[in-house]
Amino acid sequence: MLEDIDFKRTVDPEEYRALIDALEIKVAELHRRTKDAGIPVIIVFEGWDASGKATMINRLLLAMDPRIFTVHPITAPTAEESARPWLWRFWTKTPSRGRIAIFDKSWYYRVMEERVDHLVDEERWMRAYGHINSFERNLVDDGNVLIKFFLHVTEEVQEKRLRKLRRRTTSAWRLIQQEWKHHKHYDDYLEAIEDMLEKTDTRPCTWHIVPSHDERTANVRIFETVIESLEKGISSSDAPVAGSRAAPTRGKKNGKPQQVLPRVDLSLTMDEEEYDRRLKACQEKLVELSNDVKLAQIPVSIMYSGWDAAGKGGNIKRLVQRLDPRSYKVIPIIVPTDEELAHHHLWRFWRELPPAGRIAIFDRSWYGRVLVERIEGYCREDEWRRAYHEINEMEQQWTDDGMVLIKFFLHIDKETQLERFRERENIPHKRWKITEDDWRNREKWGLYEEAIEDMLRFTDTKYAPWTIIESNSKMFSRIRTLEKITGDIERAL
Amino acid sequence: MLEDIDFKRTVDPEEYRALIDALEIKVAELHRRTKDAGIPVIIVFEGWDASGKATMINRLLLAMDPRIFTVHPITAPTAEESARPWLWRFWTKTPSRGRIAIFDKSWYYRVMEERVDHLVDEERWMRAYGHINSFERNLVDDGNVLIKFFLHVTEEVQEKRLRKLRRRTTSAWRLIQQEWKHHKHYDDYLEAIEDMLEKTDTRPCTWHIVPSHDERTANVRIFETVIESLEKGISSSDAPVAGSRAAPTRGKKNGKPQQVLPRVDLSLTMDEEEYDRRLKACQEKLVELSNDVKLAQIPVSIMYSGWDAAGKGGNIKRLVQRLDPRSYKVIPIIVPTDEELAHHHLWRFWRELPPAGRIAIFDRSWYGRVLVERIEGYCREDEWRRAYHEINEMEQQWTDDGMVLIKFFLHIDKETQLERFRERENIPHKRWKITEDDWRNREKWGLYEEAIEDMLRFTDTKYAPWTIIESNSKMFSRIRTLEKITGDIERAL
Repeated sequence: MLEDIDFKRTVDPEEYRALIDALEIKVAELHRRTKDAGIPVIIVFEGWDASGKATMINRLLLAMDPRIFTVHPITAPTAEESARPWLWRFWTKTPSRGRIAIFDKSWYYRVMEERVDHLVDEERWMRAYGHINSFERNLVDDGNVLIKFFLHVTEEVQEKRLRKLRRRTTSAWRLIQQEWKHHKHYDDYLEAIEDMLEKTDTRPCTWHIVPSHDERTANVRIFETVIESLEKGISSSDAPVAGSRAAPTRGKKNGKPQQVLPRVDLSLTMDEEEYDRRLKACQEKLVELSNDVKLAQIPVSIMYSGWDAAGKGGNIKRLVQRLDPRSYKVIPIIVPTDEELAHHHLWRFWRELPPAGRIAIFDRSWYGRVLVERIEGYCREDEWRRAYHEINEMEQQWTDDGMVLIKFFLHIDKETQLERFRERENIPHKRWKITEDDWRNREKWGLYEEAIEDMLRFTDTKYAPWTIIESNSKMFSRIRTLEKITGDIERAL
Repeated sequence: MLEDIDFKRTVDPEEYRALIDALEIKVAELHRRTKDAGIPVIIVFEGWDASGKATMINRLLLAMDPRIFTVHPITAPTAEESARPWLWRFWTKTPSRGRIAIFDKSWYYRVMEERVDHLVDEERWMRAYGHINSFERNLVDDGNVLIKFFLHVTEEVQEKRLRKLRRRTTSAWRLIQQEWKHHKHYDDYLEAIEDMLEKTDTRPCTWHIVPSHDERTANVRIFETVIESLEKGISSSDAPVAGSRAAPTRGKKNGKPQQVLPRVDLSLTMDEEEYDRRLKACQEKLVELSNDVKLAQIPVSIMYSGWDAAGKGGNIKRLVQRLDPRSYKVIPIIVPTDEELAHHHLWRFWRELPPAGRIAIFDRSWYGRVLVERIEGYCREDEWRRAYHEINEMEQQWTDDGMVLIKFFLHIDKETQLERFRERENIPHKRWKITEDDWRNREKWGLYEEAIEDMLRFTDTKYAPWTIIESNSKMFSRIRTLEKITGDIERAL
C-alpha cells in the first residue's frame, strides 16, 4: 500500500497558518461534541521512526482539551503486561464513553517491532493479526470511533532526520540508538509494514497513510482526517442501530435445535465417604498443582456460572480451601461500577485478569451479558447477540496465549432450587444469601432456560468448551469440578 | 515486644471445632455489616516465614464472602512500582468503602525484607517508619478499620517447619529457597522486627502479636481479634465525629494572620517581544530537560491551581507545546467517579501518578478538598481541616523519594476575571470555557479568598513550597511558570 503514496502534494507555507487555525477550531469543536454525545474515540499513530510522530501528535493535542484525552505511549511490554494475554495492556487502556485515547504506537507493536526484532516467534505474530482485527471490530461495534494513521517517510528521509537528531545533543544521541538499529533494517520493516497494512486494513478500520516528508502537509492531512472521522462518528451515533453482522439467530434448517439441559442427568449423586476421600485427594493435588502453575507461569482461569443456589460459592470454597492465598484470586462479578459501564462490556474482565501463575477464579462471568442483561433488557438485542461472537474471540485470544480456561455451568432443577431457597430462609446465618432478586429470577426460569441453551450452543468452542455439572447433589458437583480442574491443569503442565 | 509472648496457652482440640464454627458465623455476620455500613477494612498479616501465614489467612477467608474481600500478596516491587513513591503500590490497593483488603505481607516489607536484605539504604527504610505511621493514620482517620497481625514463631520452630516443607515435594523445595536464606539471618530479622513493632505500634494502629506454634490457637486468636475490631469499627461508625487531632485552627495569638494574596504585585507585565524570546528559550530548554529527566528517571510533578480564568490551560499549553507526548502526562482533575468517591480523598492522586521520568502535569489538584469541597460543603469541616496535614504528608512522601514537586497558584484580581469571562462569552469557539458554575464561583470570591489564604499558610512547607504567580498578564504568568520549572529541574539534575 505504500508504493502509491504521493509525496508531491504540499501545503503552501503562506496559506498554512490560516488553514491550520481553522482546522484547529473545527477539531476543538468536534471533540467536545463527541464528549457530549458519549462517543469514545481512539486515535492510533503508527509510522516509521523519525517520521515526526511526536511532533504531529503534539500538534493535534494542542487543539484538544486535556480533560478529554489521554495519551498512551507504547513501548516494550513490562513484566506485568507480559504475564497476561498480549492484548491485555491495550484492552485496559480503551477509553470510556466520551473520552479520547491517543496511542503513540499501539497494538501494532507486535507485528512491527516484536516481529522484526524477533521478540516473539512467527506463530504468535501471525496469530496477532486475527486478534487485532477482532479487537478493533469489538471497539467499533461498541460505538468507538477508531482512526488509524501510518506516517510514511522514505529510507533517505529517515536517514537524513536521524543524522540531524544525532547532531543536536548528547542526550538525544543516547535516546535514538534503537532508531538507528531499526534504520539499518529498513527493508525488513518495509516488508512487515506492507504486510500489516494489508492484513489490517478492514472496514471500517481502514488505515490513513500520511506522507510525512513535509510537516505542514502531514498536519493538515491529519487534522482533516480527524475532522472527517469525528463528523461521521457523531452523525452515525444518532442513526438507528443496524443489525450486527455477527448475530447468530435461533432456529436451524431442521427445526428446533437440540436442547442440552434436559439431557443432563441430575440424579447423579455421591455418598459421603467417597466424597471425603476424593475431596481430600483433589485438594492435596491442587496444592501441588498450584505450585507447579506458579513455577511454570501458566495462566489458569476457572469460571463458575449456574442457576442461583446451584452451589457456586460452596464449590469455590472447596477449591481454595487448602490453597495458599497468594496462588489464586477470586473475582466476584457483581453490579458494574459507572466506570465499568462506560466501557465495552468485556473491559472489566480483561482488567481483572491476574498475572500468569496466579489462578483466576471467576464467580459469575462475562456471560452475564447473554443471561441477565439479555433477560432484564440491560442491553439491546443487537448487543447481546453480538456478544456470543465477542466472547468467543476473547476466549480464543486467552487460550491462544496458553491459558487453561475452564468454564463450568452448574445445573440444578427447579425443585432443588426451591428447597435450597427455603433452607436459606430458615437458617439465620444463611439468610443473607437469599434476596428478592433471587425469587424474581426464579419466576423467569423459562426465559433463563432459553438464554442458557443459546449460550451453551453459541459459545461451546473447541478452544473453550463448556463443562456442565450435574449439581442436584452438592457433593457430586464439587468432586466433578475439582477433578475436572486437576485433570485439565495436569494436562497443561 | 516479642519476649513477653506466651506460647503456653493452647486451645483444646476437642473444643476447637465448636469454637471455631461459632467464631466463623460471627465473622461472617460482622463482615457483612461492615459492608452495609460502608466501612473499609484492612487486615495486615505479617510474620516470620513458616509461621503459617498462608494457612491462617485462608482459614479466615473461608468465613468471608469473596465478593467483599480482595487478597493482596506482596512481594518485591515490580519495575512499574519502583518507578513511583514507594507507598504508591499500597495506596492504590486500599479498599473502597464497604470492602475488605487483606494484605499477605504489606508496607512493612520495606522495614523487614528490604532492610535486612540491604535492598534499600538505611536512610530510606528509617524514613519509611514516618511514612507508614502517616499512611495508617490517614486511613484510620478516613474511617478504615485497620487490623495488624504479626505471627510469631521461635527460631527452632521455624527450622523444624522449613525442614518438613522441604521434604514434601521437589517443587516446594524450589519455592522455599528464600525462606531458608532468611532463616539463616533469624537474628537480623529479630532485630528489625522488634524495631518495627516498637516504632509502628501506634494508637489506634496497634499490633496484635499472635503466638503461632499451634495452628488452632492462632486461628482462634485471629478470629477473636477480627471480631472485636469489626465490632468496634461498626459501633464507632455510628458515633458522632470527633474533632481531628491534626486540625489547624484559624487565628493566632497576635490577631489575624498575615494575608498573602494582597501582597502579590498584579501589575507585573511583559512586552510581546521579550515574551516571544523568553518563551522560545524556555521551550527549547524544556525539550532538553525532558530528555534528561527521562534518562535520569527523575520523578517530576507540576501542579497548577488558581482562580477560574487565571490561565491554567494556556500555561499548560505553552509548557507541553514542544515536548514529546511520551515525556509528559496531563492529569486533569475533574468531578470524581463513584469509585474515587469510595476511597480516601487522596487515593485518586496517588493512582494517577505516572512513573519517574515522565513529567506529571496536574490541571487542578488535591487542594480541591480545602477549596471547592470546603466551600460547597462536599466534605465535613473536620475532613477538610485534617486535609492540610494529610496533603503535607503526601507531598513529603513524594519529595522524600526524590520528586521535583512544583506547586503553582495563579493569582488574578476580580476585575481581570470578569474581563476574561466576558471575552469567553463573546468569542464563539471560546464559549465552552465558561459555564454557570464559573459565575456561581465568582459570587463566592470572598470565601475562596479566605480558603486560599488558609491553604497557602498551612501547606507552604520546606519540601513543597508554593509559588504564587502574578497572572493578570498572561504573558508574564507563562514565562514565570516556565522559568521556575526549568530552574527547578536543572537544580535537581
